Amino acid sequence: MINKEHLVNDLNAVRQKSPLVHNITNYVAMNFSANALLAIGASPVMAHAVEEMEEMIAIADALVINIGTLDSQWVDGMLKAGDAMRKRGGVIVLDPVGAGATTFRTETALKIIEACHPDVIRGNASEIMALTNRNVRSRGVDSTETPNDALESAKVLAKLSNSVVTISGPIDYITDGERVETIANGSPMMARVTAMGCTASSMAGVFASVNKNTFEAVVHAMSVMGVAGEIAAEKSAGSGSMQANFIDELYLLTPDILLKTLRQ
Amino acid sequence: MINKEHLVNDLNAVRQKSPLVHNITNYVAMNFSANALLAIGASPVMAHAVEEMEEMIAIADALVINIGTLDSQWVDGMLKAGDAMRKRGGVIVLDPVGAGATTFRTETALKIIEACHPDVIRGNASEIMALTNRNVRSRGVDSTETPNDALESAKVLAKLSNSVVTISGPIDYITDGERVETIANGSPMMARVTAMGCTASSMAGVFASVNKNTFEAVVHAMSVMGVAGEIAAEKSAGSGSMQANFIDELYLLTPDILLKTLRQ
Amino acid sequence: MINKEHLVNDLNAVRQKSPLVHNITNYVAMNFSANALLAIGASPVMAHAVEEMEEMIAIADALVINIGTLDSQWVDGMLKAGDAMRKRGGVIVLDPVGAGATTFRTETALKIIEACHPDVIRGNASEIMALTNRNVRSRGVDSTETPNDALESAKVLAKLSNSVVTISGPIDYITDGERVETIANGSPMMARVTAMGCTASSMAGVFASVNKNTFEAVVHAMSVMGVAGEIAAEKSAGSGSMQANFIDELYLLTPDILLKTLRQ
Repeated sequence: MINKEHLVNDLNAVRQKSPLVHNITNYVAMNFSANALLAIGASPVMAHAVEEMEEMIAIADALVINIGTLDSQWVDGMLKAGDAMRKRGGVIVLDPVGAGATTFRTETALKIIEACHPDVIRGNASEIMALTNRNVRSRGVDSTETPNDALESAKVLAKLSNSVVTISGPIDYITDGERVETIANGSPMMARVTAMGCTASSMAGVFASVNKNTFEAVVHAMSVMGVAGEIAAEKSAGSGSMQANFIDELYLLTPDILLKTLRQ
Repeated sequence: MINKEHLVNDLNAVRQKSPLVHNITNYVAMNFSANALLAIGASPVMAHAVEEMEEMIAIADALVINIGTLDSQWVDGMLKAGDAMRKRGGVIVLDPVGAGATTFRTETALKIIEACHPDVIRGNASEIMALTNRNVRSRGVDSTETPNDALESAKVLAKLSNSVVTISGPIDYITDGERVETIANGSPMMARVTAMGCTASSMAGVFASVNKNTFEAVVHAMSVMGVAGEIAAEKSAGSGSMQANFIDELYLLTPDILLKTLRQ
Repeated sequence: MINKEHLVNDLNAVRQKSPLVHNITNYVAMNFSANALLAIGASPVMAHAVEEMEEMIAIADALVINIGTLDSQWVDGMLKAGDAMRKRGGVIVLDPVGAGATTFRTETALKIIEACHPDVIRGNASEIMALTNRNVRSRGVDSTETPNDALESAKVLAKLSNSVVTISGPIDYITDGERVETIANGSPMMARVTAMGCTASSMAGVFASVNKNTFEAVVHAMSVMGVAGEIAAEKSAGSGSMQANFIDELYLLTPDILLKTLRQ
């Protein structure tokens, strides 16, 4: 059960504090995620060079590592950023895009988990299952599994990695290994817009940087994504206008709209 | 003359099978092309790392290689992907962006043709001419030639490379070296939206993965692009809203709309 | 005071000549900036490989170097492009994104200024100040300073580098070290769309390639950005629809609209 006062507090805190979220993310998501973060009131940075990682992390409130267009040359930057943020005590989010599709992705995701101890891991059902079971195969960046089937994997992963694990899907599941929260908002049209999941991971970074209760913060981030996506989809003829409408709804989101639309 | 039953069959097959299209494409096009593929019902993957190429190709129905923001480090991934897909017997599309503008691009495109034997080559008039005649120079990524002038080059290239060659322009030409089909749909506004041509190449990959008659499949892909572009342009105040409307029209496209709008 | 006849002449010249603007820019901005340049009537190229830099520059009217997602491997291409363009006598614009946020960015920006002698340097207040004062720190890619405070730095930088320096903000300042022009058009919503500043830099390249009076050309570019942004914001529910509306307004911009909306 979501504490609605805390949810509103976090939304207001994001607008007031404008947390600086450093994203090492994929080429497909960069523009859309940056615009989503600006729309909700955060301040996005996209940087990946090893040379500047320590200084960039020193001013960031959260780090989001996304392996969507993975390249061995970027992994060094990811690990250095994660290490610097871990030492600083800031928030780290991992989006293991395509884990289970290739060995390179699964192993890189596991390496980042081991080296950087992310606070949050967010993926689709196949990706989350692949991180605990090498026999699960993703179909590219799409899930072949349902969130419900992945829930046990998510709990195991959350306990093993001491993180909050989120499975995105028609219903989002958020677990710390013990507690499970679900978000039923959203729209099937969200899956037809690329980088929507990547943006959810960046949004988790935003909210976890204003609320030290990471489990609750991630629930709030997924609430905001689901509510904005649901309202935007109702106004959208197709997945093209959905992109703009989703950003607009993040921009226009108020505590009233959020509470009124949240199905809980 | 387009076989309208086959056209409708292919559109339906794309929606039913949701082919996985692996794109090694340029930074400018990635987001727009991914959204176009999702809108038509396909499943896009964007990945370029050599380390994961074989596994990614093993699950892909088509491979689209686009040299728009070329980098020597990416060429290895392109060649490895092409080689793996050739062995697997899947579809390969090449988009030789900027061939004729620089030696690096012309030679890389020719190297990919020689090594990977693409099933489809799609470009603008200058790019296609530059692949058979070193004296043709592109103006950056824009064509300095008309599609009609490039048709003979396209036929030669199609025969030499045993591929279906497509020239995009106000009228699109598709040839296998013998047959020539033309698509007259579209709008001048399409040329004012970046990555529209790159997206046409990815669309060729989508349709060629559901129809073994590659010539026919490419004609269908260009029909879909032209029809969606034409309807979208009519609804668009300018090239900004055109982007969203084009994706919407792909999303909303039905056999009825397609047949009604196709000028043949 | 803007010479309105010159302003209109430059807008018309852009539409007639369609200058080829070569951008070595960041991953976040590439698509949006390319679409903005197409919308105003220019012809954008995005290329970064050292291997093709000389040939690409040989056909370009302007070069825009933007360090937004800086990588040591790209710096070689930037320097080679700048060197080739300097020898050719074409326009060079530098956007020192994030200067002051990390040493790597500040030093790369200074290295490019020293090696390539850009005609135009455009940034936010912190970025411009950081180039003359190592004690100024940017907050990621956001400014911590106001344009007015940065004006003295801009004048010093303009004189030292013999360039036209532009500070973007609620009011834009353009200076060559002696003269100062201001543009009061625009909207706060522009700061909520990522890559709007990067696009202003590319627009400076467009206008400086049709007007040898670089100071005047940059004033015209900032006028166009401010006017299109102001009209677009009035039509936009939020920062998502703002993206499309801004591109539309560039596409639809006429001398009449420009002169009517410009506040001078």
